Amino acid sequence: MPSSAQPVEASVQPMEIDALVVGAGPVGLFQVFELGLQEVRCHVVDTLPHAGGQCLELYADKPIYDIPALPLASGRELVEKLLKQIEPFGAEFHLEQQVTGVATRADGRFDIETSAGRRFTSKAIVIAGGVGSFQPRRLKLEGLDAHRGTQLFEHAAALHEQTGKRVVIVGNGEAAVAAAIAAAADGASRAASVVLVHRRDDFTAGEPMLQRLRSLRAEGRIEFVAGQAEGIEEAGDALTGLRLLCSDGSLRTMPLDALYVLLGWSPRLGPIAEWGLALEKKQLVVDTARFETSTPGIHAVGDVNTYPGKRKLIVCGFHEATLAAFAIGERVFPDRALPLLYTTTSTRLHALLGVAPHLQSFNG
Amino acid sequence: MPSSAQPVEASVQPMEIDALVVGAGPVGLFQVFELGLQEVRCHVVDTLPHAGGQCLELYADKPIYDIPALPLASGRELVEKLLKQIEPFGAEFHLEQQVTGVATRADGRFDIETSAGRRFTSKAIVIAGGVGSFQPRRLKLEGLDAHRGTQLFEHAAALHEQTGKRVVIVGNGEAAVAAAIAAAADGASRAASVVLVHRRDDFTAGEPMLQRLRSLRAEGRIEFVAGQAEGIEEAGDALTGLRLLCSDGSLRTMPLDALYVLLGWSPRLGPIAEWGLALEKKQLVVDTARFETSTPGIHAVGDVNTYPGKRKLIVCGFHEATLAAFAIGERVFPDRALPLLYTTTSTRLHALLGVAPHLQSFNG
Repeated sequence: MPSSAQPVEASVQPMEIDALVVGAGPVGLFQVFELGLQEVRCHVVDTLPHAGGQCLELYADKPIYDIPALPLASGRELVEKLLKQIEPFGAEFHLEQQVTGVATRADGRFDIETSAGRRFTSKAIVIAGGVGSFQPRRLKLEGLDAHRGTQLFEHAAALHEQTGKRVVIVGNGEAAVAAAIAAAADGASRAASVVLVHRRDDFTAGEPMLQRLRSLRAEGRIEFVAGQAEGIEEAGDALTGLRLLCSDGSLRTMPLDALYVLLGWSPRLGPIAEWGLALEKKQLVVDTARFETSTPGIHAVGDVNTYPGKRKLIVCGFHEATLAAFAIGERVFPDRALPLLYTTTSTRLHALLGVAPHLQSFNG
Repeated sequence: MPSSAQPVEASVQPMEIDALVVGAGPVGLFQVFELGLQEVRCHVVDTLPHAGGQCLELYADKPIYDIPALPLASGRELVEKLLKQIEPFGAEFHLEQQVTGVATRADGRFDIETSAGRRFTSKAIVIAGGVGSFQPRRLKLEGLDAHRGTQLFEHAAALHEQTGKRVVIVGNGEAAVAAAIAAAADGASRAASVVLVHRRDDFTAGEPMLQRLRSLRAEGRIEFVAGQAEGIEEAGDALTGLRLLCSDGSLRTMPLDALYVLLGWSPRLGPIAEWGLALEKKQLVVDTARFETSTPGIHAVGDVNTYPGKRKLIVCGFHEATLAAFAIGERVFPDRALPLLYTTTSTRLHALLGVAPHLQSFNG
């Protein structure tokens, strides 16, 4: 289950940082690694409640075959490996928020603000925005939007407030299943009734969670209804029911106090389009030596950028992140002159990676 | 022990192929993979007796930390993973030979010849030459070169011809250890005596091989001498001894019939410099959209190339190989128009990878 959303996370003073990575997908994560090798400590912002981006949202359990030297990995495994790889660098993640404003200072640094009220002053920014920032997928029903935040929720955060209430959950993924189980489970915050709605009786989640769902359905504590939402019913300002076209052709209205729409996330380019950076077909234009946008100090890597020859492949994003890191290293440490160091031989890089000298050679 | 060299491998008719990859290091191997996804079948030429290039010669047992999503791998492990990844494409390897001549035909194809007499006619060439082609490291002693091929050998190939002879082996790596064991072992081709020479009593090989060495030394069938070669002794045209400055300061001459210098391999740019391609500081100049040299149809990827922003890192070579493969795909199939396909979703790529449909989704 995603961690709870923090809509406002006030910070009076902006944090002074070296680099901000916008996007925690695979390329954003490898960006953290390459910045780490350049001794640039960075922070990461992402709209999702977890790292992994598109890779987890769209193909967590699907196979990827074209990551070099990784003949087969699921999206989830790829993200896990990258998270392990960046561990030595202790990057701080700011999740469930997006960058809402960027302003360039006279000294070339950037003032940045997020939707959660977090503020940064950073020497560099890397947009690893993938196909765009992920927004919760919405149910498009007339009048429904007016109930957002009071009776309509698109994340599982306020679930513990539904004690004794009638809860309807729409969705068939892990988030929907987990929310149904949490609402129906024994405990102080148990809902009065839990209805799970999806077109088909077909749920995607880990086997232990699916087993728990089956047993709660057998006990009658979770009701499953096969159908599609068609409309809402209201009484005054209150949302009172969800009208369903059931799979057997019948119409049915589910009375409710709270509606959870947990249909996953879909990407939108979002506010980045308003940053004033050069765009070409909604992609950020970059050079191929530094992967820098039209604003010096703001780089773009991965699916969000474009340049002659660009292919939207993760392997290309890894290269882009690498060269962007060198450019940012030069920006953050203008007086430093380092030769190209190799992780195999450089004691400086070994220290950064936290690798003890006796581990520097092994018989594989 | 390396497989035996084949100095002349005559082929009357040139093989007609789509692409030749020159260099079987990690980037050359991933080039095979990316060409495979483009449905371009290729052949690979390398001077070494095995795939892996620099990665195996220089850091087979050393750790690499900066391959994306591979937090730690030895050079050997990296090569093994890449070899597994390219298995579906069945590329043919032509080892222990280098490209000696390239000529462009009127139709844009290339006539290629290797030092082993192999001939190809290819639509495209990718030079994945790394730091250059590896040549056996030589012992620089006055007069020694004259005995090459008769009494001096820099590979273990002619070892079986030394039955009953006095063999001196210089080196401390796996090749030297394996040669000493092979020459001293029971069997029809056992040498009369085997002397192993290295500065220090310190050998690098797998533990079973080191154990075998210890027991053959204990039995007196291999003599170890700690010292450095200083000169040779001759009688007429024959090489009769190797003069050593021993580690205890004494001088000693080891009488011999055959001298094996097995000190590993070192890279040289080699004949590629003579192909007439634009060079900059001994690197092949390429563009960053197709990674093509000054000759259309000849690409260069990995450490051998240069362009603005170039860093000699494997991760960059992987990207270069990817974009080169797209360009070669267009050259080989000029009338084909394909959208960008993803290994996660494309049934066309699944067929190429030999992945059965039921394997296309799994819970990782």
